[in-house]
Amino acid sequence: MTGFVAEGVERVRREAPLVHNVTNLVAMTLSANVLIAAGASPIMSAAPEEAGELAALSGALVVNMGTLTRDWVEGAEAAVAGARTAGKPWVLDPVGAGATAYRREIAARLLAGRPRIVRGNASEILALERGASGGKGVDSTAGSDAAAEAAMALASRARAVVAVTGAVDLVTDGSRTFRIANGHPLLTRTTASGCALTALIGAWAAVLPDPLEATAGAIAAYGIAAERAAEIAQGCGSFVAALLDALGSLDGPTAARLARIA
Amino acid sequence: MTGFVAEGVERVRREAPLVHNVTNLVAMTLSANVLIAAGASPIMSAAPEEAGELAALSGALVVNMGTLTRDWVEGAEAAVAGARTAGKPWVLDPVGAGATAYRREIAARLLAGRPRIVRGNASEILALERGASGGKGVDSTAGSDAAAEAAMALASRARAVVAVTGAVDLVTDGSRTFRIANGHPLLTRTTASGCALTALIGAWAAVLPDPLEATAGAIAAYGIAAERAAEIAQGCGSFVAALLDALGSLDGPTAARLARIA
Amino acid sequence: MTGFVAEGVERVRREAPLVHNVTNLVAMTLSANVLIAAGASPIMSAAPEEAGELAALSGALVVNMGTLTRDWVEGAEAAVAGARTAGKPWVLDPVGAGATAYRREIAARLLAGRPRIVRGNASEILALERGASGGKGVDSTAGSDAAAEAAMALASRARAVVAVTGAVDLVTDGSRTFRIANGHPLLTRTTASGCALTALIGAWAAVLPDPLEATAGAIAAYGIAAERAAEIAQGCGSFVAALLDALGSLDGPTAARLARIA
Repeated sequence: MTGFVAEGVERVRREAPLVHNVTNLVAMTLSANVLIAAGASPIMSAAPEEAGELAALSGALVVNMGTLTRDWVEGAEAAVAGARTAGKPWVLDPVGAGATAYRREIAARLLAGRPRIVRGNASEILALERGASGGKGVDSTAGSDAAAEAAMALASRARAVVAVTGAVDLVTDGSRTFRIANGHPLLTRTTASGCALTALIGAWAAVLPDPLEATAGAIAAYGIAAERAAEIAQGCGSFVAALLDALGSLDGPTAARLARIA
Repeated sequence: MTGFVAEGVERVRREAPLVHNVTNLVAMTLSANVLIAAGASPIMSAAPEEAGELAALSGALVVNMGTLTRDWVEGAEAAVAGARTAGKPWVLDPVGAGATAYRREIAARLLAGRPRIVRGNASEILALERGASGGKGVDSTAGSDAAAEAAMALASRARAVVAVTGAVDLVTDGSRTFRIANGHPLLTRTTASGCALTALIGAWAAVLPDPLEATAGAIAAYGIAAERAAEIAQGCGSFVAALLDALGSLDGPTAARLARIA
Repeated sequence: MTGFVAEGVERVRREAPLVHNVTNLVAMTLSANVLIAAGASPIMSAAPEEAGELAALSGALVVNMGTLTRDWVEGAEAAVAGARTAGKPWVLDPVGAGATAYRREIAARLLAGRPRIVRGNASEILALERGASGGKGVDSTAGSDAAAEAAMALASRARAVVAVTGAVDLVTDGSRTFRIANGHPLLTRTTASGCALTALIGAWAAVLPDPLEATAGAIAAYGIAAERAAEIAQGCGSFVAALLDALGSLDGPTAARLARIA
């Protein structure tokens, strides 16, 4: 059942996929360090002049709309075009999708670019599926169960794997659904921890052919690292370094053993 | 005397105010993590398309001109307009205000947008009040006492609470003045620690009605966390995580007891 | 032989040079904290309106093309012009120089601005000298020995000191060459650790008259701090704080004693 978790951990470390990130300004450093800790090779660029070329060179593309600007949108669309032309998977993180009219518009436009995977919190997935406003800024105000129905509908409509992360994480392609019980509340007390998870999903999508398994496996591995980090951390500050330490030392068999995927 | 310190710590944690930050590229991650550690909910965006809407949705707005660009100025002005229309308090951090002609111009323009609170180091407050150049880049070359007179004049002229942070911090509204003796020199060895304090003042301004108390209380709480972090830290690197850990575990009664406000 | 290492460590701490950084979005925080830990005073700005003025005010300028955009290029060119007019040394970090056509074009344009020092990994220096593509995104796919010939040629052609960092670091001005054996593999598992080293070279170039010694000394000091940090760190996450702690407590005689420069 969790053989793909071991496989993903090991293949990311062995194949060191290049992951191109068009991401937000708060998430850049943590995303890069999470990718490196897992064994992947990150590159960050939102320049329209090269974003398409980088996406095509990479094993996967991650697009995160946390700090949205016109220039960023231009770069993200060039990157998506590059990834699609090259047949590379791309992952959308619709940060704060329901928070403002501008975000709703850009999220819908990016969704039309056919991401293979979408990861958000409950408010974001609800906003993406229903076009509704919601959430408190970039933080969710809804439980992930509340978003399960929206996730299934969105997965079917967008032909994408959709992940709703929260106390329990849900990953669905509209027909098959995984629930992952790994993780720790300190993740919610670390800025950009969700964004960095999306980056990690990108690395897994670059090495595993099944996007549902790549998404569920990356979420489980990240949650396991968080559980181990929480044992060592003295609070939300020291948790970040401990998370990277734990992710960097996680091996495939341990990940498969500790994964709680149903 | 320090009852408002306990009240602020507890209300930020309980009410979890949304704080919108139009801030600089160096300060984003630390500011977000300081807000989260204290219990607030940060959002970061400088896009003119949504900055006004986000400021209106938030409990407070924080504008920090550390890495100044034309696009950022446009976003900051949209955010300030949104905050003013919605009657939300906003806090100005005039980073490096005296360092260049461009900074002097933008600082003056932002000040005309009527911030409720201004926090800077001595060089910045002197530059803001006297239109003079000074400081060494973004670091102060003047003591905070030297800036006390300028702070009082600026507070009266701008009808704002003005905080000058340094070895001893001074907070004034032009008539009442607090001096806060909490803090630790390791704060000066951490990039963006002042910027992150300004973000925290934003969270306090969202929950406490008196901006003088909100400013003094946030400065005291942050200084107390720094004192505790310095006991644990091995140097300027490990200090950052320890600061967030300490801020995350600070409770109201402890903060009130340790606050050195005169 | 390593007297200049002691001198550099001590003079950066005593003179606290202002170092202006036009750098990338991932590297900003770490670069600033590395500069502060070493005793320098960082400023970060890529605004064309002030970049030239800041470069002229500073002891040195560092230009890092990690996250390249049109606006950034405009700011970098203004900063370079300011540094040149004021006779200040400037250091180029050609991140991912061979990764895309856009990067090759901008790297060549910046090189024409006559940096005093260039620091890159083997793939970047090869790309800069031969105009060739290469590297895997921003990570090197070549050893530093492979790039030694290219470094000598580039140093002669550009009349600059060229540093190729890797398992063993090479620094050359085309006639004299140093090899530095300090460092630790955990540096390769920390995003922007090379960028932050380039920033540190800027601080050394501001205080030492010989750019070859400034470059070799900064690389040795940084490598020594990394060695000490690796003894304490539990992995790639806790390494970052330990690196800053070690850099902050490094004194001149210790650095001279531990430097492995040939």
